[in-house]
Amino acid sequence: MAVIPVPERLLHPMEFPRKLLMGPGPANAPPRVLAAGALPLLGHLHPEFVQIMDDCKSGIQYAFQTENPVTLAISGTGHAAMEAACCNLVEAGDVVLVLCAGIWGHRFADMVDRHDGVVKKLNKPAGETFSLSDIEQGLRAHNPKLLFVTHGESSSTTLQSLEGIGKLCHKFGCLVVVDSVAALGGVPLLQDAWELDVVYTGGQKVLSCPPGASPISFGPAAMKKVKSRKTKIRSFYLDINELANYWGCDGQPRRYHHTGPISNIYTLREALSILAEETLAKCWERHAKCAALLHDGLRQLGLELFVKNPECRLPTVTGIVVPPGVDWKKVADNAMAKYRVEISGGLGATAGKIWRVGLLGYNAEPENVKSVLSALKEGITLQKKSHL
Amino acid sequence: MAVIPVPERLLHPMEFPRKLLMGPGPANAPPRVLAAGALPLLGHLHPEFVQIMDDCKSGIQYAFQTENPVTLAISGTGHAAMEAACCNLVEAGDVVLVLCAGIWGHRFADMVDRHDGVVKKLNKPAGETFSLSDIEQGLRAHNPKLLFVTHGESSSTTLQSLEGIGKLCHKFGCLVVVDSVAALGGVPLLQDAWELDVVYTGGQKVLSCPPGASPISFGPAAMKKVKSRKTKIRSFYLDINELANYWGCDGQPRRYHHTGPISNIYTLREALSILAEETLAKCWERHAKCAALLHDGLRQLGLELFVKNPECRLPTVTGIVVPPGVDWKKVADNAMAKYRVEISGGLGATAGKIWRVGLLGYNAEPENVKSVLSALKEGITLQKKSHL
Repeated sequence: MAVIPVPERLLHPMEFPRKLLMGPGPANAPPRVLAAGALPLLGHLHPEFVQIMDDCKSGIQYAFQTENPVTLAISGTGHAAMEAACCNLVEAGDVVLVLCAGIWGHRFADMVDRHDGVVKKLNKPAGETFSLSDIEQGLRAHNPKLLFVTHGESSSTTLQSLEGIGKLCHKFGCLVVVDSVAALGGVPLLQDAWELDVVYTGGQKVLSCPPGASPISFGPAAMKKVKSRKTKIRSFYLDINELANYWGCDGQPRRYHHTGPISNIYTLREALSILAEETLAKCWERHAKCAALLHDGLRQLGLELFVKNPECRLPTVTGIVVPPGVDWKKVADNAMAKYRVEISGGLGATAGKIWRVGLLGYNAEPENVKSVLSALKEGITLQKKSHL
Repeated sequence: MAVIPVPERLLHPMEFPRKLLMGPGPANAPPRVLAAGALPLLGHLHPEFVQIMDDCKSGIQYAFQTENPVTLAISGTGHAAMEAACCNLVEAGDVVLVLCAGIWGHRFADMVDRHDGVVKKLNKPAGETFSLSDIEQGLRAHNPKLLFVTHGESSSTTLQSLEGIGKLCHKFGCLVVVDSVAALGGVPLLQDAWELDVVYTGGQKVLSCPPGASPISFGPAAMKKVKSRKTKIRSFYLDINELANYWGCDGQPRRYHHTGPISNIYTLREALSILAEETLAKCWERHAKCAALLHDGLRQLGLELFVKNPECRLPTVTGIVVPPGVDWKKVADNAMAKYRVEISGGLGATAGKIWRVGLLGYNAEPENVKSVLSALKEGITLQKKSHL
């Protein structure tokens, strides 16, 4: 009865090399996180699984430094968390001020547009960040209901300071959404102290677990906006009211909403355990130290950092200017072919102009910094030799 | 600087019992599928990962019996695939005819409503299915652009025959979306031969892999509707144009759209390999045989099947009438407490009235049928004794 034949390739096992993932993510996952992903399945409403969800919830509250009850993991990768922030908060006609200093702002703006929100962009060239006065001007000019800011702009390798933004926005009656996919865990983020209404991140960066369950937290003002919507939330899958119930955040008995990504929740739980064991303070410190080590090494190689202002450098993803006459891709290809080390190129405005090196979670270790430096050195030297 | 303390529970390992999941899903995953989920991470655009995505694509084409180029896995669980079908095809004002014989139709209707589609429902009591003449009447009465049908209604334990529905709908200029989450792989489904425009399934049922990557296939007429939309697709994450590019379905170079759920794609690939090794025909046959074994055993226990018409019984999820005077939950609780065997209750209209027993993929084996029968027998006997 079946007419489409068995695909021949599926009769052979998957095989691929182990790589050192030193790009902007995914990072390698620690063996114990991978092992957690292979634990036997539980039902998505079994008490043991609900306990693991509760553990994840408290681990995310710790990682985000928040006491928000509506703290959970979205059943998808980082973009699904971004979409959850957008679809729950934005209604047709809502003005949304989007800070764009790389691709992530433009991506959120695309989502706002799909929800018939009115996008207003503040732009900065790649490598620069926004001051509170830039933001205040934007708030005065556009009177937005929502402001979107990227904490770690992985495409521009910048760290946007978040301190003061929440308070400023709230003075103007505006909510703040923070994309901390590339930064969370690598630098301080204090959701409650900094009055950040919605924060989300991904699994595959500093948390170093397989992508597929993405932490997010909605503060009380964000939930008030959700509850006072005049129009339906377009997404059922990402409806934060339903998710808050499934995650036991609303004080009601848990209803079946959707089947959670069980194994991803296991790996997220294990990754959050590792963070709890290390503590946030030490994790931030480790990333700062590794970034300093990388920066020193790059200077010794005569290479220039893309972000000029040291305070705006993202420790988790470093941008390195490709020197004149050097083909960035040949250097990256050599690193991968010879050492199985991933070094990435730029993205968006930085494409072709920089290399991006990730120091993310499990991979933020001095020996990995050395591997990257030696691969960069060899790749550049090989090209200079071939020019002689 | 961190003020929210480390959560104490996260400093202890996850621990939970291995269970035999004989409810309507998730099913247990085979050890080699779980092991695939613990393979080291690759980048989401690395050539080795793209090859694994291609393998999944051909495996899904085989499982669905389709040659549709736009065949891929959604980066979420089954509900995300349902939402992908809805958000890509439904525009404001579109009339959608939803066949409701259990909860899944109502769920799709909820999604259509969120997208401002006009929902028209055809209803059947739980346990019954639709005839072609029922459907033709609905098409004539409502002139819908889209028809939604559930292949395996896991809440009512019915199997809806799909043969003829595609051709009939196309005569009326209507597209067909098929939810085959609970049925696919357990009974024949021939997407191309039966002219089914969109089919989707989940990972955690017959495919028996962890939920988180959900197969879907869009046929040419469905893609034509997508391409001729007058309004934006609300979801960026589920935009089938973007997904088709990321999955190499559109002949264009792959762009970065989102980070795929890497480990879930590994496990899906392994699950599809197992199906390819067994072949669809033998997998269908195994489910039919196990269901027959279960039905025989139930009859010997004096228990009654919920679905009266043998042709409408879903082999993957069997509904069993709870006899008068028996508390279904005590029986299920006894099975779990004593044998770690999951037996579920009803859902929606069948809640409290039936038990649901899953025979899904890896778990569809005679010894598991025996475990369920003996757990049911013991649980019922215990209750009858306690009534004496």
